[in-house]
Amino acid sequence: MANTIFAVIMAGGSGTRFWPASRENLPKQFLRVEGGHSLLRGTWSRLDGLVDPENILVVCGQGHADLVRAELPELPAENLILEPVGRNTLPCLALAQKFLREIDPDAIQIVLPADHIIPSREAFQQSVGAAIHTAQSGGLVTLGIPATFPATGYGYIQPGEPIEDVSGGKAWGVRQFIEKPDMARAQELLASGEFFWNSGIFVWSTSAFEAALERHAPELWHGLLDCAEGGLEEFMESVSPLSVDVGVLEKEEDCKVVGAEFHWSDVGSWPALDDVLPDAGAGNRCSGEGQLIAVNASNNVVHGPDGHVTALIGVEDLVVVHTEGASLVCSKKHAQDVRAVVKQVREQAPDRA
Amino acid sequence: MANTIFAVIMAGGSGTRFWPASRENLPKQFLRVEGGHSLLRGTWSRLDGLVDPENILVVCGQGHADLVRAELPELPAENLILEPVGRNTLPCLALAQKFLREIDPDAIQIVLPADHIIPSREAFQQSVGAAIHTAQSGGLVTLGIPATFPATGYGYIQPGEPIEDVSGGKAWGVRQFIEKPDMARAQELLASGEFFWNSGIFVWSTSAFEAALERHAPELWHGLLDCAEGGLEEFMESVSPLSVDVGVLEKEEDCKVVGAEFHWSDVGSWPALDDVLPDAGAGNRCSGEGQLIAVNASNNVVHGPDGHVTALIGVEDLVVVHTEGASLVCSKKHAQDVRAVVKQVREQAPDRA
Repeated sequence: MANTIFAVIMAGGSGTRFWPASRENLPKQFLRVEGGHSLLRGTWSRLDGLVDPENILVVCGQGHADLVRAELPELPAENLILEPVGRNTLPCLALAQKFLREIDPDAIQIVLPADHIIPSREAFQQSVGAAIHTAQSGGLVTLGIPATFPATGYGYIQPGEPIEDVSGGKAWGVRQFIEKPDMARAQELLASGEFFWNSGIFVWSTSAFEAALERHAPELWHGLLDCAEGGLEEFMESVSPLSVDVGVLEKEEDCKVVGAEFHWSDVGSWPALDDVLPDAGAGNRCSGEGQLIAVNASNNVVHGPDGHVTALIGVEDLVVVHTEGASLVCSKKHAQDVRAVVKQVREQAPDRA
Repeated sequence: MANTIFAVIMAGGSGTRFWPASRENLPKQFLRVEGGHSLLRGTWSRLDGLVDPENILVVCGQGHADLVRAELPELPAENLILEPVGRNTLPCLALAQKFLREIDPDAIQIVLPADHIIPSREAFQQSVGAAIHTAQSGGLVTLGIPATFPATGYGYIQPGEPIEDVSGGKAWGVRQFIEKPDMARAQELLASGEFFWNSGIFVWSTSAFEAALERHAPELWHGLLDCAEGGLEEFMESVSPLSVDVGVLEKEEDCKVVGAEFHWSDVGSWPALDDVLPDAGAGNRCSGEGQLIAVNASNNVVHGPDGHVTALIGVEDLVVVHTEGASLVCSKKHAQDVRAVVKQVREQAPDRA
């Protein structure tokens, strides 16, 4: 009998790189970047036909439960797992594992962040299908994105021996994981032609992940298993933040990487929308639900709320974001400074941060 | 006995160069450009101590009466003159003249647009004081601004024989008025060192202006005098738009110009705010009531509503305007294209124009 496919959507992120559209009370996964729907909703829709909605779990922070319910009305109430406090992806996925092992110990899990953009559902499902096939013979499978530029914001994966070549993607063993490199190292990795980016999308069986937790994070895992219902908050408060990449994958012998054939972005900052939103003319990209009027304006990223008109005249390579209460105009090459601005906003106008 | 000083504030303008802050239902004179108050309010306040509020008349379009009353609660109700339809400054001032001759035929009138910025009230009142002195001996007096760059958006005045040199300003006869020149001509006029810009601020006695209307615009003037109360709209509809400069001043023998000693701008477009708003650091100017956070950003003009935060990162020489429903980001050198954008907005999102 085939294993049942589950998905675990990690919707607990928070961040400041999409200020002012994203705020403390509205993290990036809730942004309506692609037209009328949020990144979370896009993640949900990408699973359509691949995973039964009854088998999709969402993990999010307690303060964002209502936002998740509003975005995903089809999500069964009992499938929303609330984190009392965010501690990065390892505690998040261990929590989902505790939940899922009770429902279906033979499940295959697709683990995916709620804040990525992958324009083609079909290509996504083909690659994930290949990863599911690979995960059924054991191990922890990560989807690897062929590196196309010397990114310093992504982790890298060097594939090892080829394992199989199934419909939808090739699978390899993993020779090594490399943490976010500096520019010189990133250029080396790219030039070698041997490396994938780590997409943060994983596929594994519930039994394989449990075995890996036992091996590499026994304290966290048993602490969580022993936790009575009322004690979760206190326990999670005591846990150090750790990513599943560092805490489990990099320590695990039996890791596999499946080459992803889809266009992907983790949308790390406003200019990243260039790669994943359609060209609205002259290289301009429209995020959100606003309307753009461009005159002698090219290669800008614009984000506005429903019906908002943004007019650009004689400008290029800008990020232009307008929200109620706050606006940002930033040259693309300074996008990394948005975080510094949010710090200033916290001091000067805390309700706008 | 000294003549009583009246002021006629022309608040009937409309225009598109300050879109999106200025819209069809909120022309420039109602914009809160200088901190918390509108240009109209600034015009009113500049008369403080010079003209009794009882003696200030305001002419505006019927659709803007409530806006004027809200901005100028001290304005006596009977001093608000409503134009059924805007026909440029000559019909506007003839209407005020019809009203004023009944109240005080010996009045001296200070005529001034509601949408200028003059940072120093003291300097303004000194120059106007000199113009009042000059006007008391007859003729139509205009305040001339010493030309400092080859502006193509202003009319020019060449002074003739010196008349007098009173406290607050020198007066001359007028040799010629020159309509808005092209750039080559503007450069010639500037190079000659002989020309003033026409500020559009005038001082004359009610009797002198009436005589000039009789001479140069008898049809308009008598039509207006003969107009019964209910017939004003029909009459004004029948009148062709004409400026007081072209229709009266340029034809009048007895014109005088008083050199203005104050810093002035008719605020013809967003970048003009550079000259009249204080430097908020790195050459950035804040218009409106918003708040600016600038990181590596210089020489920008920013306009936002009360409490709105605008963050600029790594940009220069931009106009950045945010309003409810519409935003503009425009390089300063393309500011003349705002009008073209408003045309597009009228077609694509008429409620935002």
